Amino acid sequence: MTISSGNILLVQSGGCTPVMNSTLAGLIKNGQTLYPQSRIYGGIHGIEGIIDGKIPDITELSNSQLKSLSKMPGAALRSSRHKLLPNDIGPLLNTLRAHDIRILHTIGGNDSAVTGLRVSEAAQEDKYELQVINLPKTIDNDIVLTDHSPGYGSAARFISQATFGIGKDAEAMGINSPICILEVMGRDSGWLAAASSFYKKTDHDAPHFIGIPEVIFSEEHFMISIESAYRNYGYAIAVVSEKIRSAEGNLGRDNPPTFTDNFGHNYFESPGKYLSDLVEKRLGVRCRWEKPGTIQRSFMDAVSTTDREEAYQIGRKAVEMARSGMNDVIPTLIRSSNQKYEYSIGSASLKDVAGEIRYLPEKYRPDEQGYTSDSFKSYLRPLLGNPIHDTDSIFHLL
Amino acid sequence: MTISSGNILLVQSGGCTPVMNSTLAGLIKNGQTLYPQSRIYGGIHGIEGIIDGKIPDITELSNSQLKSLSKMPGAALRSSRHKLLPNDIGPLLNTLRAHDIRILHTIGGNDSAVTGLRVSEAAQEDKYELQVINLPKTIDNDIVLTDHSPGYGSAARFISQATFGIGKDAEAMGINSPICILEVMGRDSGWLAAASSFYKKTDHDAPHFIGIPEVIFSEEHFMISIESAYRNYGYAIAVVSEKIRSAEGNLGRDNPPTFTDNFGHNYFESPGKYLSDLVEKRLGVRCRWEKPGTIQRSFMDAVSTTDREEAYQIGRKAVEMARSGMNDVIPTLIRSSNQKYEYSIGSASLKDVAGEIRYLPEKYRPDEQGYTSDSFKSYLRPLLGNPIHDTDSIFHLL
Repeated sequence: MTISSGNILLVQSGGCTPVMNSTLAGLIKNGQTLYPQSRIYGGIHGIEGIIDGKIPDITELSNSQLKSLSKMPGAALRSSRHKLLPNDIGPLLNTLRAHDIRILHTIGGNDSAVTGLRVSEAAQEDKYELQVINLPKTIDNDIVLTDHSPGYGSAARFISQATFGIGKDAEAMGINSPICILEVMGRDSGWLAAASSFYKKTDHDAPHFIGIPEVIFSEEHFMISIESAYRNYGYAIAVVSEKIRSAEGNLGRDNPPTFTDNFGHNYFESPGKYLSDLVEKRLGVRCRWEKPGTIQRSFMDAVSTTDREEAYQIGRKAVEMARSGMNDVIPTLIRSSNQKYEYSIGSASLKDVAGEIRYLPEKYRPDEQGYTSDSFKSYLRPLLGNPIHDTDSIFHLL
Repeated sequence: MTISSGNILLVQSGGCTPVMNSTLAGLIKNGQTLYPQSRIYGGIHGIEGIIDGKIPDITELSNSQLKSLSKMPGAALRSSRHKLLPNDIGPLLNTLRAHDIRILHTIGGNDSAVTGLRVSEAAQEDKYELQVINLPKTIDNDIVLTDHSPGYGSAARFISQATFGIGKDAEAMGINSPICILEVMGRDSGWLAAASSFYKKTDHDAPHFIGIPEVIFSEEHFMISIESAYRNYGYAIAVVSEKIRSAEGNLGRDNPPTFTDNFGHNYFESPGKYLSDLVEKRLGVRCRWEKPGTIQRSFMDAVSTTDREEAYQIGRKAVEMARSGMNDVIPTLIRSSNQKYEYSIGSASLKDVAGEIRYLPEKYRPDEQGYTSDSFKSYLRPLLGNPIHDTDSIFHLL
């Protein structure tokens, strides 16, 4: 199936990454080139914009606007966490028909793959010709069948540096604030938390503990690691995923939720706060806890050059895939060489991606002193982009 | 008084900045050059190291080590918040005498100026010849008689970008997490919080409210600004200094302290958390709050090129000042041109600096919609270093 007439609709979905607008720019740029007769629309707030018919025409963006767009954090078309309901299908197909949209590109993660597939099926059932090609995007790195996902490298760069920095700070401050817990994102996988180990070379270096969602969290093991580092080195750094779970459930979830939204979703006290209180009670010293939150997925200075470029090329490639008639697919990143890092772009079936979660594999998981493996660092290194100055020459003055 | 024999002691004090090691490197480098016969010692954990006699010899650092040092966050000699006690003077002078130390350089802020002066007086009373030359260092920018202090530009760069990023993120996420509060450092002054306004060009842009310690915080005014932005633009960002105060005292301080340290200092729930709860209760939508904490003063990628260079030159200059016989002084930064930014290094008397706090002047203070003045942005711009790509070309796709 190759559809040479008709128009293109682009949407962004899920949590933001600092390079998802780079992918959007790549899509628009190559759409202008390979589909010169088509209009390019942008759905506002993802699938919600399609359902509501809010899809402005963005065909005429200039090269300089696209260049600026490619460097902007956030999601220029706005994002969405809406799960498609049966009642949404009718209005959605109406919008597609009304604008003769024949290609739908969703820049998103695992949930978006499910949605993309559902839209594709609905169109087929309705005998409406539509190509659905998603584009990978997540700081969590939890999409299967790709070496990594655009967004991860930049967020990982942020977390690796943040850990290094707060480590040096806590070490310097000593008794005034010797212990610090860094709470990081990553949803159900520990890819992002594991990146905190990148600059750790010795037992002395931060982090001294990494908690990931894949491993049942033990307060006792955590306390042993932190107390040991504090006693031996005068400071201690723990990095924990915001979704770590103890054997009894999520940490601090014995308390009532701090907020319940209109959908009935509960929001609980963060594990960083909970563990900080625990450390202060047990060790009697001040324990900071830092929560960069959405800063870690939107910080311009920490964008990985590799990540931004790959995100852009993924956008371009998706248009080529459409042009070649592919459907229900998602481009993937293939690492063709790690000696001198090289990548190519392949593809996977949306069916094989939807609903799957790529957890941090055993061989990459941190031990209880905050080390990951050389193989993980080797995996991570090229994704972080241009080297941060002089980190190879780090030495201990004292 | 010019002391041509004798040795040099360097210490770092107070909260870390990402460029205080650059100042240290400048000191060591020029100390090696201008005092080739002298030993250079480093006091571990500031004044505490002098009292305890822990002052390793760091004369022989190589150029490549100094280059690496100049780019490291934290305080390589470790820092201190110790306030000098009468009983400390004896041991302190003993250490100075034992190592024939005739020049003391403290890289620090307002508290360090008080300490430096006290040491100088004690030496004089004891008829011990000693030159005391402090070096300015603070992300808070609250040292008087200098255009700005090394450390501020880099932390301000971090906060300005963090605000821009979380703004774009909240705007994109919409109803899922439309409101975010960013809690920033700055001690008793609003310089750092004010930097969050750097990228704000329109009412739509973040931040929509800035709370600084110099202005009594009103929950009602805060809520009006945030609710108005949320209703009009679908999202809202507030930036608040961690030490904002309401008319009744510090926010959230009605609750008992979350921790009390061995010195009896109380640590309270943060204002970000308090205000986040308030927003959720009043508006019924999720309100994130982010606390970069020590990340904002230690993040390598966000170091301002201007800031690092000035920090280094301040270090070099202090050695020249010693060589020329000055005493009880601190080098200051003078802005000689703002058209094309140029600076020179002057000096101030420690007596005029000690115990003073430089608050954010009226003309630079944010209004209740999160705007500061053009004059403040003009002040801030050169301090942020190399421009962040393309921010001048920012446009709204929607």
